[in-house]
Amino acid sequence: MADFTVTPWEVSGTVDYQRLITQFGTQPMTPVLLQTLGNYAPLHPMFRRGFFFSHRDFDLVLKDYAAGRGFFLYTGRGPSGAMHIGHLTPLLITKWLQDTFHTNLYIEVTDDEKFLVKGKSWNEISSQAEDDMLDIAALGFDPERTFIFRDSEYIKNVYPLMLKIAKKVNHTTTKAVFGFTDQSNIGITFYPAYQIVPTFFEKKRCLIPAAIDQDNYWRIQRDIAEDLGGLKAAAVHSKFLPPLTGPAGKMSSSQAETAVYLTDDATTVRKKVSKYAFSGGGATVEEHRKKGGNPDVDVAYQWLSIFLEPDDVRLNHIHDEYRAGRMLTGEIKQLLIDKLNAFLAAHQQAKTRARPALKKMRYTGTLAKKMWETTFV
Amino acid sequence: MADFTVTPWEVSGTVDYQRLITQFGTQPMTPVLLQTLGNYAPLHPMFRRGFFFSHRDFDLVLKDYAAGRGFFLYTGRGPSGAMHIGHLTPLLITKWLQDTFHTNLYIEVTDDEKFLVKGKSWNEISSQAEDDMLDIAALGFDPERTFIFRDSEYIKNVYPLMLKIAKKVNHTTTKAVFGFTDQSNIGITFYPAYQIVPTFFEKKRCLIPAAIDQDNYWRIQRDIAEDLGGLKAAAVHSKFLPPLTGPAGKMSSSQAETAVYLTDDATTVRKKVSKYAFSGGGATVEEHRKKGGNPDVDVAYQWLSIFLEPDDVRLNHIHDEYRAGRMLTGEIKQLLIDKLNAFLAAHQQAKTRARPALKKMRYTGTLAKKMWETTFV
Repeated sequence: MADFTVTPWEVSGTVDYQRLITQFGTQPMTPVLLQTLGNYAPLHPMFRRGFFFSHRDFDLVLKDYAAGRGFFLYTGRGPSGAMHIGHLTPLLITKWLQDTFHTNLYIEVTDDEKFLVKGKSWNEISSQAEDDMLDIAALGFDPERTFIFRDSEYIKNVYPLMLKIAKKVNHTTTKAVFGFTDQSNIGITFYPAYQIVPTFFEKKRCLIPAAIDQDNYWRIQRDIAEDLGGLKAAAVHSKFLPPLTGPAGKMSSSQAETAVYLTDDATTVRKKVSKYAFSGGGATVEEHRKKGGNPDVDVAYQWLSIFLEPDDVRLNHIHDEYRAGRMLTGEIKQLLIDKLNAFLAAHQQAKTRARPALKKMRYTGTLAKKMWETTFV
Repeated sequence: MADFTVTPWEVSGTVDYQRLITQFGTQPMTPVLLQTLGNYAPLHPMFRRGFFFSHRDFDLVLKDYAAGRGFFLYTGRGPSGAMHIGHLTPLLITKWLQDTFHTNLYIEVTDDEKFLVKGKSWNEISSQAEDDMLDIAALGFDPERTFIFRDSEYIKNVYPLMLKIAKKVNHTTTKAVFGFTDQSNIGITFYPAYQIVPTFFEKKRCLIPAAIDQDNYWRIQRDIAEDLGGLKAAAVHSKFLPPLTGPAGKMSSSQAETAVYLTDDATTVRKKVSKYAFSGGGATVEEHRKKGGNPDVDVAYQWLSIFLEPDDVRLNHIHDEYRAGRMLTGEIKQLLIDKLNAFLAAHQQAKTRARPALKKMRYTGTLAKKMWETTFV
């Protein structure tokens, strides 16, 4: 059974996502749900193509919205190392959801958690957090409806609520849910209380777009939410963007060959993709022409499918040509390189202009201002 | 062996203080040390009469002071219920130490800890904390050299340091030191990190006057201090002021008959002492006249000795008269009632005038202002 592992701190092996749905007790994303969602806007490729494969109470979120009760969005970022494109997938879907539903959005930057589990100094984590927020702001969230905060800077406003949550959770639970042990430090075992805090920021239902490895937190939240007078958090769960080096595990900042960083320039991207991108193609051109390639494990195809080629007609064409062996590995890699470089160039440009928007999301925008004036008890 | 218990959350049985020194690995307070201390000011009765019976590195504190390196004071208050005179003993000795050595003093009001372990709402703990700070300010600490803070209000300034401490402590340690279990909530096991934080507020040595039940925290602090580039905390440890009802255990806010509250009026004090004060006297007047009383267990005598009758000549006279059976239980109780009522009347008066001093200790005094401008990493 244990041929793969999915926890907030480790993803390894080839993940069987259907089995995770059973294991975690979540619900599969259904065509009916996607159809309802599609009534509000043309579906984002990550929804359309099954990258967000699972959910909790997303049906109730859509009902709340249809009934005029609304909902709010919450996602996060752990500033442990250089940001790569794998970190963007929940953020991109969050942006699409905010654009579609015009909701408030809370983004938690978990500097505390990362300091507690990584062998880095506070200053290193702190600089990373500052840089990450600029990357996030560059994605173009609504600066008046988005509040982004570092755990360490906002803690005073939430500490009583955090204590209230902590009082409801014991170590038997967190050992079972997260695999903590008596060797875990006394900070990281308290941290789940903070990750649960934002689910209570509004009286509406909270929808959390995140990779499936974060679901542990929401299980605890859902057990205690009603006791605390709140609503159970809803979630949409994504798969992991496959690492450059192959379909198993998760892209990792600390393994440079697995990741494309948001700061990579065009030459670096070309070199990385050419050298490392795991290919579903034949071992030789002859074999490839004869047997065709396998898009299901080909990282270039997967990345195009997940977020870089939104046009279904073009993507299907690539799929069929590659499958049939008419498109070579070098050719599909070149398609990926072009798309990645266009994406990164635009992002890097946007980042240079993101400071004013970030200031609003942190301090001066409508939502941010309100948040700094509020203490949650 | 386990005929008494001393932890931060429970004190029961008749405490064998000599055995605690061995058990906790502290040092006994020696005549030589007290003599050195006495060079700076006439010794406070709680030092002179052995109420502060144990220490850690108090010799080094006095050496630091003599060598011009100085030291700073740190003590605290857990706002769980109405303050009684038992809560004052560490505060009174702290005031004496501040008056004598003109040092900075930090007072931590642990609203977080008390919320996590008591069945009270945040608002109840919060009101108690506000009221307690007024009682503390009324004791007359130097408003320019004292910083008093509620954990929940100051956390932003110390959170990175708290995380640094937490990263060095695991659950095996806190289970052994505090007796936490897997049923403990995830907040209370993190809390020790906060109680350790103020020991690093200055580069000087920190001296902590507190009852011996708080020593667990300093043991952990001393294990990790040097790793974090700080000094091992020093402490002077007091016994417990005996409850009104007898020599065993500790005065408790939640058992009204054991305690004299700081808000008690003269009539209440008279009634409580007459009715509940555990007597070392004979069962009848005849027996008392014949066999004499036992000051060692008589609560009236003990309270007079610990802090209400500073005059040694008078105290010895009371001791001898009571011991000999010439002074009756009713008479020694009356002496206690008079002293208590004079003390409480003065305190209650001082409390009505304490708001400006408290404001300085919290926000606007020299030390407080500096503390609000500092973030500890």
